[in-house]
Amino acid sequence: MNPKIRSLRNQMLAKGINGMIVSNPVNIRYLTGLTAEGTLLLTSKENIFLTDSRYIEAVNSYLTIDQEIVAFDVRDLSTADYESYFNDCENVGFEEGYVTYEKYKKYLATYRINNFVETDGLIELNRFVKDEEEIENCKKACLITDKAFDYIKEYIKPGQTEKEIALELERYMKTNGADDLSFETIVASGPNSSMPHAVPTDRKIEEKDIIQFDFGCKVNGYCSDFSRVLFVGEITDEQKRVYDFVLKEYDFISSKLRDGLCVKEVLKEAEEHYSEEGYLLLHSFGHNLGLDIHEEPVLASRYETKLKKNMLLTVEPGVYLPGKFGIRIEDTILINKDGSNNLTKSGKAVCILKKTEIY
Amino acid sequence: MNPKIRSLRNQMLAKGINGMIVSNPVNIRYLTGLTAEGTLLLTSKENIFLTDSRYIEAVNSYLTIDQEIVAFDVRDLSTADYESYFNDCENVGFEEGYVTYEKYKKYLATYRINNFVETDGLIELNRFVKDEEEIENCKKACLITDKAFDYIKEYIKPGQTEKEIALELERYMKTNGADDLSFETIVASGPNSSMPHAVPTDRKIEEKDIIQFDFGCKVNGYCSDFSRVLFVGEITDEQKRVYDFVLKEYDFISSKLRDGLCVKEVLKEAEEHYSEEGYLLLHSFGHNLGLDIHEEPVLASRYETKLKKNMLLTVEPGVYLPGKFGIRIEDTILINKDGSNNLTKSGKAVCILKKTEIY
Repeated sequence: MNPKIRSLRNQMLAKGINGMIVSNPVNIRYLTGLTAEGTLLLTSKENIFLTDSRYIEAVNSYLTIDQEIVAFDVRDLSTADYESYFNDCENVGFEEGYVTYEKYKKYLATYRINNFVETDGLIELNRFVKDEEEIENCKKACLITDKAFDYIKEYIKPGQTEKEIALELERYMKTNGADDLSFETIVASGPNSSMPHAVPTDRKIEEKDIIQFDFGCKVNGYCSDFSRVLFVGEITDEQKRVYDFVLKEYDFISSKLRDGLCVKEVLKEAEEHYSEEGYLLLHSFGHNLGLDIHEEPVLASRYETKLKKNMLLTVEPGVYLPGKFGIRIEDTILINKDGSNNLTKSGKAVCILKKTEIY
Repeated sequence: MNPKIRSLRNQMLAKGINGMIVSNPVNIRYLTGLTAEGTLLLTSKENIFLTDSRYIEAVNSYLTIDQEIVAFDVRDLSTADYESYFNDCENVGFEEGYVTYEKYKKYLATYRINNFVETDGLIELNRFVKDEEEIENCKKACLITDKAFDYIKEYIKPGQTEKEIALELERYMKTNGADDLSFETIVASGPNSSMPHAVPTDRKIEEKDIIQFDFGCKVNGYCSDFSRVLFVGEITDEQKRVYDFVLKEYDFISSKLRDGLCVKEVLKEAEEHYSEEGYLLLHSFGHNLGLDIHEEPVLASRYETKLKKNMLLTVEPGVYLPGKFGIRIEDTILINKDGSNNLTKSGKAVCILKKTEIY
């Protein structure tokens, strides 16, 4: 059987759950590799993927015998089929954080379910630590991301808008191996950079601007996440001070991360550095990522997060001075036994686009 | 009070519902114009928008006194505040098709709710018919869409991939007034055109190709939706036959649409035309659109849909010959008293890109 489903089934049994309806398409992709619309049923006897006529052919040609997943077109199912699936299950799990109330009631009306139990987070817990193939996909996404940043440094000219630059970054990634963006690309220039979640505007790049980038792409569904700033022509003393602080925090945090670490203490210390300088913390220091761009756990001192080998994380300290500017530096990293590896590898020294380069 | 909320409140009262939790961000945008994350509470006394520190300032500067909506940062609310909102409501509505089971339970635990009733579809029903401002936004989106199609006809060169052309279309729309895409752009060439929901691939455009386009954009949240085909260098007799059939069906359906029409009979007749030619119907003939690209009602003979003045609809007949090609022609149209108006206005005569144009 597919090893991810086997592992989930063992965890279910440990909780006395012998059936599950998996509805969240990201969890279905994680467990099966399938991207078709449908529902995965783990019954006491079988793994069943219910889909429709648009997908059934592609699904059947994708599934191998080793997966031990049988696919049905819902047009071919009777009321009795639905009622039989969980007939012998004492407890059937569902994803209460994904399934709507309407769908919840529909499941209860469609299947014969003795005891419907909330299992949201169970599959997500398995997704914390990645296998080799997942890490390989993330590495590919990170490589495209680094190349896109190299490319855009050459592309930028004063007079271009944030939107134009963001679209060019996206075009580069999508035509160089990415299957999608990890999220909407952030290109925030001048004072716009002080908003952590800025949306690209029609503001034109000017001499002396700071430009904040935050972007990433997906390869086989797996995300990269990356932030850098560029300075146009020059950097002010205040910007240099903030840049140095953010880079120091990045180095402080990332140098500590390794298998087995409880991050609480390290992050508390990082928070103290912020207080000492009088900077506000507007967001966490990072997050897990994979098929979703934001996965649990989050790097924040309020959580009792313990790192494990083969977690994929972002480290992304930032400082934001409203009305002035903001600076965030971020890499996607891989936790290993004795430390961590950067999967995005672009340099982090101050990068000033010279006049001769941009005119 | 905001007229859309006033109208909803009247409908609620007619059903004995004196409170509602509106969670779906599209419904919140429709009712209030707000795009910030948050929840809209219609209590017996007030309209309340609960948001957080990221949005509260922008929300307060957007809301006018006429709207009669008061906004709160959730950090400033106590348990007692939450418990007071619906204390005097007999029935409180919620959107069971949007709210997850987890959220449903959280609402019950947070608010003091006597009777929690399902009201999904109530706001959506109001969204069927558009007001002047909504129509104006859709018209702007349609104009950008037409211009994008004109632009791309000049842009296309053999050797470009479907992906490249799709990205260029998207770039054009986003840098010419669109705030977003209505959906992922479809550019499907050669045999790929036989799949109604094709995703752009790395297939390169060749001489004698047919290219199916299906795309649209948003202005102030309101969608356009548009499909045309282009022929590269030449059109075959079979393609011409199918094209003429699809265009005739488009004209047949769109010529009948007007305020008050029950579409069932017209669509049944259109279906008969398909049977007579031996063509399969792979999707409906169209759908309502607005803040969502697919809104109710759908143009299919199985529904008892009655048209109303100021509905925005797509009309999009298509024929798909697997392994060969597909042809779909689609406009966004506005229903009026005596007929309908095309809001996308690109010509529908066969368009062959000449060799001299593309080399």
